[in-house]
Amino acid sequence: MTNKSLSEINHTIENELKEFNKLFSQALKSKVALLELITRYLHRQKGKKIRPLLVLLSSNVCGGIKERSYRGAALVEMLHTATLVHDDVVDNAETRRSFPSINAVWKNKIAVLMGDYLLSRGLMLAVDGNDFDFLRVITNTVKRMSEGELLQINKTRKLNIDEETYFRIISDKTASLLSTCCEIGARASTEEMEKIYAMRDFGENLGIAFQIRDDILDYIGTKKIFGKPLGGDIKEKKITLPLIYALKQSPKEENKKIIRLIKNGAKKSDVDEVISFVKKYDGISYADKVAAEYTNRALNSLKIFDESESRNALESLVSFVVERIN
Amino acid sequence: MTNKSLSEINHTIENELKEFNKLFSQALKSKVALLELITRYLHRQKGKKIRPLLVLLSSNVCGGIKERSYRGAALVEMLHTATLVHDDVVDNAETRRSFPSINAVWKNKIAVLMGDYLLSRGLMLAVDGNDFDFLRVITNTVKRMSEGELLQINKTRKLNIDEETYFRIISDKTASLLSTCCEIGARASTEEMEKIYAMRDFGENLGIAFQIRDDILDYIGTKKIFGKPLGGDIKEKKITLPLIYALKQSPKEENKKIIRLIKNGAKKSDVDEVISFVKKYDGISYADKVAAEYTNRALNSLKIFDESESRNALESLVSFVVERIN
Repeated sequence: MTNKSLSEINHTIENELKEFNKLFSQALKSKVALLELITRYLHRQKGKKIRPLLVLLSSNVCGGIKERSYRGAALVEMLHTATLVHDDVVDNAETRRSFPSINAVWKNKIAVLMGDYLLSRGLMLAVDGNDFDFLRVITNTVKRMSEGELLQINKTRKLNIDEETYFRIISDKTASLLSTCCEIGARASTEEMEKIYAMRDFGENLGIAFQIRDDILDYIGTKKIFGKPLGGDIKEKKITLPLIYALKQSPKEENKKIIRLIKNGAKKSDVDEVISFVKKYDGISYADKVAAEYTNRALNSLKIFDESESRNALESLVSFVVERIN
Repeated sequence: MTNKSLSEINHTIENELKEFNKLFSQALKSKVALLELITRYLHRQKGKKIRPLLVLLSSNVCGGIKERSYRGAALVEMLHTATLVHDDVVDNAETRRSFPSINAVWKNKIAVLMGDYLLSRGLMLAVDGNDFDFLRVITNTVKRMSEGELLQINKTRKLNIDEETYFRIISDKTASLLSTCCEIGARASTEEMEKIYAMRDFGENLGIAFQIRDDILDYIGTKKIFGKPLGGDIKEKKITLPLIYALKQSPKEENKKIIRLIKNGAKKSDVDEVISFVKKYDGISYADKVAAEYTNRALNSLKIFDESESRNALESLVSFVVERIN
């Protein structure tokens, strides 16, 4: 297997991505001037469009891209954009992809409504296309994403996340959408359940590997490279896999002390101490190992498909996504 | 026609409303403790459940309440609750139905996610019930509601709303959901398009009459009776029908002066002057006349149905809704 870069992966379905972009823009047309303005603004922010790419490549390995594949791709991108717009309200974020966020430019009021609007436009695409199967998958995903976030908030307050809960949270809040992209792409092109389930598992495992890697970056990344400041999760009292493992490995006294530090809050020296603690008890290498396991599971799910440029593109996408999706 | 009170209307389908409440609670069950807590809290806030009532009564006049009617009723109530939760974030509202709002108790973060969760649960009910027709109607409604709100914000900034735009806004942001309640109730019980369209028109006209009345209350209501402080819309620079009419009737100079007062903002003496201006140029009696017209259109839509207790209940509901829904 040779690893392609993201632009090489994109190149393999260049015309199809253009077709998708056309449909996506068209579906967002509105007679309301403010809506046109905001959607044009969102368009300028771009983003890597990993999710539509996953839909189209999944269709490709399952028998070729169909008309329905484009609708599926536009649907997931709209849902994803809706959740980003709502996330920025939720987190009071000032920027998104180096642009001021919607809530920063137009205030929360418009951002909340814009998220609802984007979600409904996405669903309408599926309704208009009679893609009942897409709706079944996507509404469950919206539920899982919000439920996962709420579970995380719930548990974060109590600082008592075990490994099982951690996996439930990241499966719901992150992996569910990537899994849905792959499942929808597959459903657009085949009715063979073996293939559909294989693609769904591929997306789920890819999503889990990505989220674990993202959580690791909180302990080893630097803002310059990854766009994430070191220790941000710790400041927000988010307990992720490296820390869960380190807490389990450490003696009771040290464990208690670290929990106290996190509870007390955001001092830089405390954050540094938590990071050192996690490294000391191998939290990072453990999480790395688990992420690698999920990466392998994802790659294994692809083995039922014949080797092809599309399968290779999906394999390459795994390396890219697990390293630095956003 | 004898006018029933709301509790008399409710009494006509008491058992059916119980059945609805059971399904509604069941559909909101979650394994996430925080979600259970919030849904129980929302349940305690109660509310008049006008929308499920509309669904069930519409089913009744169209041939009787079916299993699908209950799902439709739960779906619209979930969507309505979702929009209320988001609205309170949008408006920074501290209370809802005399209880602290979700955002006031749990912060914006949870309120935004909770709205998304409620919406997805509603849609899932329809998906699980294979109610594809409901999904078609409801996703379009979500789009219209957010689009209508955004159009209002857009126009409010520019203070240039004409009557046509006003009707487009209130049709999208308010009437669409009431219309959808009636359409869904009808679709649950009949395939006769004449009946379905009649119920849809009934809801649409009812919604427009209600919103005009609600807008009038900003000029004549008192907080004690209607829960709305006098002049709130004027302070928010919302131009509604009474003002649109008065502005059209007044000489250019006076018109300009009033626009300037509204632009400059929230002083009580200015608000009082705007209210006097609207009364002087008959803005309120005009709006009252228009609301009565829409009320009549709504009642006329019911004439294709045989007289029955349910039809009478719907007729009574018109009086109730147009006077003081919330």
